Amino acid sequence: MSDPTIIDGKKVSKQVQEQAAQRVEKIKQATGVTPCLVTVLVGSDPASITYTQMKRKRCEAVGMKSMKVELPTETTTDQLLAKIKELGDDPAIHGILLQHPVPSQIDERAAFEAIPASKDVDGVTIASFGAMAFDLPGFGCATPAGICDLIDAYDIDCTGKHAVVIGRSPILGKPMAMMLLARHATVTICHSRTVDLPSVVKQGDIVVAAVGIPNFVKGDWLKEGAIVLDAGYNPGNVGDCDYESCFPKSSMITPVPGGVGPTTIAALINQTSIGAARQLGLDPNNL
Amino acid sequence: MSDPTIIDGKKVSKQVQEQAAQRVEKIKQATGVTPCLVTVLVGSDPASITYTQMKRKRCEAVGMKSMKVELPTETTTDQLLAKIKELGDDPAIHGILLQHPVPSQIDERAAFEAIPASKDVDGVTIASFGAMAFDLPGFGCATPAGICDLIDAYDIDCTGKHAVVIGRSPILGKPMAMMLLARHATVTICHSRTVDLPSVVKQGDIVVAAVGIPNFVKGDWLKEGAIVLDAGYNPGNVGDCDYESCFPKSSMITPVPGGVGPTTIAALINQTSIGAARQLGLDPNNL
Repeated sequence: MSDPTIIDGKKVSKQVQEQAAQRVEKIKQATGVTPCLVTVLVGSDPASITYTQMKRKRCEAVGMKSMKVELPTETTTDQLLAKIKELGDDPAIHGILLQHPVPSQIDERAAFEAIPASKDVDGVTIASFGAMAFDLPGFGCATPAGICDLIDAYDIDCTGKHAVVIGRSPILGKPMAMMLLARHATVTICHSRTVDLPSVVKQGDIVVAAVGIPNFVKGDWLKEGAIVLDAGYNPGNVGDCDYESCFPKSSMITPVPGGVGPTTIAALINQTSIGAARQLGLDPNNL
Repeated sequence: MSDPTIIDGKKVSKQVQEQAAQRVEKIKQATGVTPCLVTVLVGSDPASITYTQMKRKRCEAVGMKSMKVELPTETTTDQLLAKIKELGDDPAIHGILLQHPVPSQIDERAAFEAIPASKDVDGVTIASFGAMAFDLPGFGCATPAGICDLIDAYDIDCTGKHAVVIGRSPILGKPMAMMLLARHATVTICHSRTVDLPSVVKQGDIVVAAVGIPNFVKGDWLKEGAIVLDAGYNPGNVGDCDYESCFPKSSMITPVPGGVGPTTIAALINQTSIGAARQLGLDPNNL
C-alpha cells in the first residue's frame, strides 16, 4: 500500500481562519463594530493559561478583539455564574469561551449553561448540542467542528461509511457522533465498557479517537485503508493513536501535533465571527 | 434454541402507570392539586384523534386531569405557538403533549420548542434531548423512554452489549441511541444510507427498529439470541420487524401490538406525574 495522506491541520486551520478574517472585515465595514471573544479562565493551570492566550492571539490575527477574564482558583459556582451572566449581557462581547476543565468545586455544567446560546461559540451548551444533533442552526462543539473542517477540506465523503467514534464525552464523542450522522455515516460509539474494542474499531472506514489515553489505538486494530482522526492530545505531544503502527494501515491520518489540534481553535474563531455577524443582524453566509 | 421471551408491553405499562398513580395520589394529598396533561391536536387525522383520546383516558385512569385543545387543520405556526405559550404559562397545566405529525404548513420544530422544558413530558424539545444525552435531569422522549422501561422491567443489562439502532429521527433513533449509551451499551446508529444493513444488524445483541417500514428487519439479519425491540407501528398493526422470521432467532422480542406501543403512553403519563411533582415543589422520587 502507498503511504497515507497526512492531514495537514495547520493548513486547514489557516484556510478556516482566512474565511473568518474576511467575514470580520465585512462585519467591520458594515457595522463599524469589531467582533470580540472573551476567554474566561478560573485558576492558574499552566496549560489552560497557554490555551487561552493562543485563542486570544488567534482572535487578533483575524482582526477581532479579545478580552480575558481571570478568576482565582477558589472561585465559587455562583461567582462564576454571575460573571458569565454579566458577559452574556454585554453587547460588546460576541463570544464566550470558558476554558475547561474548571476547578473541582465548580459545577462545570451550570457554568456552561450560563452562556447564552447566541454567544456559545465553543459549542458547549445543551442548546448547542441539541440544535446540532437535530440539524438546526447552532454552534458545533469546537473540537468535533474542527474535525469536520478537516473532513470537508480533504473531501472525505462520509455517506454510507462506517465511522467508529471512541469516546462518549459531551464535548467530543457525542457531538462527533451526531456530526458524522448528519454527514450520513453509519456511526458506532465505543467507550470504556465496550467489549473487544479492537474488533469494533476494525469496522471503521473512519476512526475518531477521543479517549485521552496516549497511543491507545493500535495499527492492528484498524481496517486496511481506514481514515484515522486523532482528537487526543496527551502530555508529551502524543495522540490517542499509536502513530507509528497506525500510519501504514491508514489511507489518511492526522498527526499529533498539527492535525486536529489547530482546527479546534480555528473552529472557535470562525464560530465567533459567525456569532458576531448574527448578533449584529447580518447573515454570516452572505457578507 | 428455546422459544424467546415475548416482552409484555401491556404488563410493563401497567406497572409504570401504577407508579404514576401512586405519585399522583401523594401529590394530591400533599398539595391538593390534581396534575393535568393537555393534549394539543391540529387537524382531524383519525389516528391522531384516537391517540390523543387514549392519552387523555390514560391520564384519568391514574387520577390525573386532562384537557384537550383542538385546532383546525389550517392553523398557522404563529397561532399554534401562541396557544402553546398560553398553555405553558398556565399553572394549572403540568404537561403539554403536541400530537405529531402536525399539518405541513406548520413549523413542527418551532411548535415543539414553544413547550417549556418543565412541561415537555413527551420529551420532544432540544432542551430535553440535550439534557438526556448529557445524563442530566430532564424528560426522555416518550417512545425510547418506554423502551427503557421494558429494558428495566426485563432486567436487560446493556453494559458492554452491542446495540444497533435502525433509524435516526430526533424523536426515536437519536434519543434511543443516547439512552442505550447511558446504559453503557456500545451503540451503532444505522439509517437509509447505511451500506449492507443486514451485516450491521447482525452484530446487535440488542436491535431497536425505528424505521416505519412494515416487516423491514428479517430474521436472517439477526445474531442468534438477539433482543429485538420493535418501535414500528405500521398500518394493519404491523411492526418494523418481520415477527415470524425474527421470533426464532431472538432471545427476547416485543410483539406488535402489545410491545413497545403501550409503554410510550405509560412513559408520557409517568413523566407528567413527575413534572407535576417538580412544578409543585415536590421531589418526584421521594413522595
